[in-house]
Amino acid sequence: MAELRREPIERRWVVITKNPPRGPADYVPYKPPYQLQEPIGACPFCPGQEGMTPPEVFSLNEEGKGWSVRVIPNKFPFFHIEGEFDRRPEGMYDTMKAVGAHEIVVEAPEHDQSLATMDPRHIERILDAYQARFIDLKKDVRIEQLLILKNYPGIFNRHPHSHLLAMPIVPRTIDDEIWGTMDYYKRKERCIFCDIIKEELSMKKRVVLETPHFLVFCPFASRYPFETWIIPKGHSPDFHTATREMTGELSALIQSLFACFRKLLADPPYSLVFHTSPLQHRFHQDEYHWHIEIRLRIGLREGFEWATGFFVNPTPPEDAAAYLREVR
Amino acid sequence: MAELRREPIERRWVVITKNPPRGPADYVPYKPPYQLQEPIGACPFCPGQEGMTPPEVFSLNEEGKGWSVRVIPNKFPFFHIEGEFDRRPEGMYDTMKAVGAHEIVVEAPEHDQSLATMDPRHIERILDAYQARFIDLKKDVRIEQLLILKNYPGIFNRHPHSHLLAMPIVPRTIDDEIWGTMDYYKRKERCIFCDIIKEELSMKKRVVLETPHFLVFCPFASRYPFETWIIPKGHSPDFHTATREMTGELSALIQSLFACFRKLLADPPYSLVFHTSPLQHRFHQDEYHWHIEIRLRIGLREGFEWATGFFVNPTPPEDAAAYLREVR
Repeated sequence: MAELRREPIERRWVVITKNPPRGPADYVPYKPPYQLQEPIGACPFCPGQEGMTPPEVFSLNEEGKGWSVRVIPNKFPFFHIEGEFDRRPEGMYDTMKAVGAHEIVVEAPEHDQSLATMDPRHIERILDAYQARFIDLKKDVRIEQLLILKNYPGIFNRHPHSHLLAMPIVPRTIDDEIWGTMDYYKRKERCIFCDIIKEELSMKKRVVLETPHFLVFCPFASRYPFETWIIPKGHSPDFHTATREMTGELSALIQSLFACFRKLLADPPYSLVFHTSPLQHRFHQDEYHWHIEIRLRIGLREGFEWATGFFVNPTPPEDAAAYLREVR
Repeated sequence: MAELRREPIERRWVVITKNPPRGPADYVPYKPPYQLQEPIGACPFCPGQEGMTPPEVFSLNEEGKGWSVRVIPNKFPFFHIEGEFDRRPEGMYDTMKAVGAHEIVVEAPEHDQSLATMDPRHIERILDAYQARFIDLKKDVRIEQLLILKNYPGIFNRHPHSHLLAMPIVPRTIDDEIWGTMDYYKRKERCIFCDIIKEELSMKKRVVLETPHFLVFCPFASRYPFETWIIPKGHSPDFHTATREMTGELSALIQSLFACFRKLLADPPYSLVFHTSPLQHRFHQDEYHWHIEIRLRIGLREGFEWATGFFVNPTPPEDAAAYLREVR
């Protein structure tokens, strides 16, 4: 079972997985990340291969056609649904079991689809599946944070899929945002995300597209070239409460945005994450604002980022937004 | 000139470089990072090509043989030595000019050397150059933090080199460590790094090697497979005050450690950073403890890391340390 260890100085949590532990042979020869990867043998995410995965926890089915979206437990989870935390010291350090859940959302039966090429009505089904899993998993009081993460292409399998992580700890990215929004709220009695939306709509130069309920923009201090956020214009802390009207609109917008990326940057690799309110902290209703962050995996300067915790971006967000608007 | 922009929620600083700004054509086709890169045409870091770089700010020379280590300003710096900060608002946001310095340390005349293959006496010369530049740059009161970063292989040129960054802001990685060490000091009146050294020396299982002045170990909550730290055993906040006896010992130790990595993991790509005390905060004398952090660029899970700010490591540090001890 995976173990959570707390780094004693900065107090970050690290998941140490041991199932099985990886040694030098697993890293040689060095493989660059985000090259197209194919599983050895049949793809376990393709229709007909369902026996290769753990039993599904959720699926959406089309009459006479089988499943269209399928959710399964990850065979090699970072967080495990069974067991107790067993918090304990190890010398001067802190450790506990990695309790939570780690599910894979198989986004479509087709092996070669992507968000840029899918029918928006199909993307809506994926969002439906996310929401259904959120509503189910949030009943578990051990879970502090639900998070959706998609890597494209996948690291071990290019069949379109995303990760649904149910974590016993609010991750640092969300925690830092909450700290910032609460501090801002104290001074202004306004949500900082709502203020950013108004600022971007009035300045216009970093806006990529706008729909009745959503704004797509490149943030002022974009950490990465073509970093893009999708945010609901109305204040809303939780993704899983988005209405059907909103998820329908969001689906069309996602397809259209990723079609732009594909056209402009030759189908670039990317990661996408949903930031939504922690589950057990109901006091964030006024301050937190769910959104989607997108990082293209191009022009990486990860040595500098790792070393300093700050970022160098050679593409100003005003330029990025203009390129994306032009290519639509 | 590069611009520093403050992300308004988490308040991280981002360097936006515009010299020239990069557009879509610069990112297509997608190139994986840390593939061996060669400059187009002659290597500007090789002897005889000195005219291709800005004039050197420092060099070490061997009689009758020319330079052995050479320090030059970066042609495309993240931080610029000339100019004023010009702090100002931009709508609701904050921005200033990226004032500081960004130098390249050309570590050797030979194009194909690495820390694993160099003579330790040559590594000592590189450390001497770092210290000399630190002592010179710290006179500039605008500079809050000096940082040495090495990426192997280099992103744009494999000729052995490292970056020396003089920054007007204490980067988040150092700032988070200082926050943690000060909090620990308040409770215990001891340096947390000193306590970690004692703990690791008594537990032994994560120790890679030990010399009279230094400990090399894989930290308890290693974020990355084979993450390794080099730390002076005696309390010392500043790298640039290390004695000649210490830098001599450190040079041999660096060569020996990187020879282990090379043997065990087939010459893996890595990043290495020196964490040393901020310059203008003299109150950290008791709390901060300089050290070197090494991250091998293998088995990357950067989507998860980017999305959550925490880490998944499939190689427990006890295993990593054992593998490294065995291969010596």
